[in-house]
Amino acid sequence: MKILLIGASGTVGSAVATELAQRHEVIHIGRNSGELQVDISDPTSIRRLFEQTGRFDALVSAVGSVTFKALGEMTSDDFTLGLQNKLMGQVNLLLIGREFANDGASFTLTSGILNRDPIRTGASAAMVNGALDAFVKAAAIELPRGLRVNAVSPTVLEEAMGSYAPYFRGYKPVPAAEVALAYAKSVEGLQTGQVFIVG
Amino acid sequence: MKILLIGASGTVGSAVATELAQRHEVIHIGRNSGELQVDISDPTSIRRLFEQTGRFDALVSAVGSVTFKALGEMTSDDFTLGLQNKLMGQVNLLLIGREFANDGASFTLTSGILNRDPIRTGASAAMVNGALDAFVKAAAIELPRGLRVNAVSPTVLEEAMGSYAPYFRGYKPVPAAEVALAYAKSVEGLQTGQVFIVG
Repeated sequence: MKILLIGASGTVGSAVATELAQRHEVIHIGRNSGELQVDISDPTSIRRLFEQTGRFDALVSAVGSVTFKALGEMTSDDFTLGLQNKLMGQVNLLLIGREFANDGASFTLTSGILNRDPIRTGASAAMVNGALDAFVKAAAIELPRGLRVNAVSPTVLEEAMGSYAPYFRGYKPVPAAEVALAYAKSVEGLQTGQVFIVG
Repeated sequence: MKILLIGASGTVGSAVATELAQRHEVIHIGRNSGELQVDISDPTSIRRLFEQTGRFDALVSAVGSVTFKALGEMTSDDFTLGLQNKLMGQVNLLLIGREFANDGASFTLTSGILNRDPIRTGASAAMVNGALDAFVKAAAIELPRGLRVNAVSPTVLEEAMGSYAPYFRGYKPVPAAEVALAYAKSVEGLQTGQVFIVG
């Protein structure tokens, strides 16, 4: 398979690259690194990416920014980054990318644990994750040509606990390599409309 | 209790008004009708509303617009209405309204069945409902002063089946009066961070 991996240089993305490169052609894509670049918050940048990649068999998105801030200090504007970047950025990878997807191609997006198990400062992350989990479930039933879409919803990563531990006390972290398995299940399996929970 | 009811003239709102007016002072608020008006997609309009209502004990929102459209015809822009109106409109009722809420006041927002049980043309509705269900769960743990927030997630209404039936074949509709009970549970009970599913 020809697989587009958005966020290939990240902690999750690197582990997904290692897992999938054993069996597939993986194109490394990043904001500023990788073989190709994309700003997922900009639909024009997304379209330019696909014009460069050409047709593909799977897209994996392991990117998305949200604002972490105490709810007491949040205004409407603090939710914009999450909605435009992690949510609509990933949704637009599907809405635009489907034109370039081969029959039976899959889209695998990344949500996360915070809608299932919230933390302080996580209201925007929870909102966006809940939106993504719901979107893949609904979009899957309308996709033509055997196209599929799933989300992977990981808990906090072992590799991230150096900086994230104070925000995730009591959460059992998982290694990125274990999270990467869920992406392989989505890409190489046949399920659609699923949220693969890891941790 | 002094209860602000946004969307008081709608099918759900009317039933909620009937249920709550038996025991409470209910202020009827609408886009163009009611005692006071608000455009929930406009934070300035929301702030003006609360300056008119003054302090309150409960806010019920039974409003929110989304775009229904076949996924194959949807672009990024088709998700904007749902994100700005039903999602951030209701979230802003809390973000702005909390300044005017008495200690222990509750916010009850409205999501809906489509993230749990999707239909054709429902991708934006599913996204927004999933976002709302997640937001109330996350926001609830950060609210101060005993403030509470819940969502009510109803299936299709019996009263709406005249026009909605073709989109909801096989769905068991519920009467608006039954949906109204979930709002009373949220307002008059003590739970927070919950999604009350009806139907």
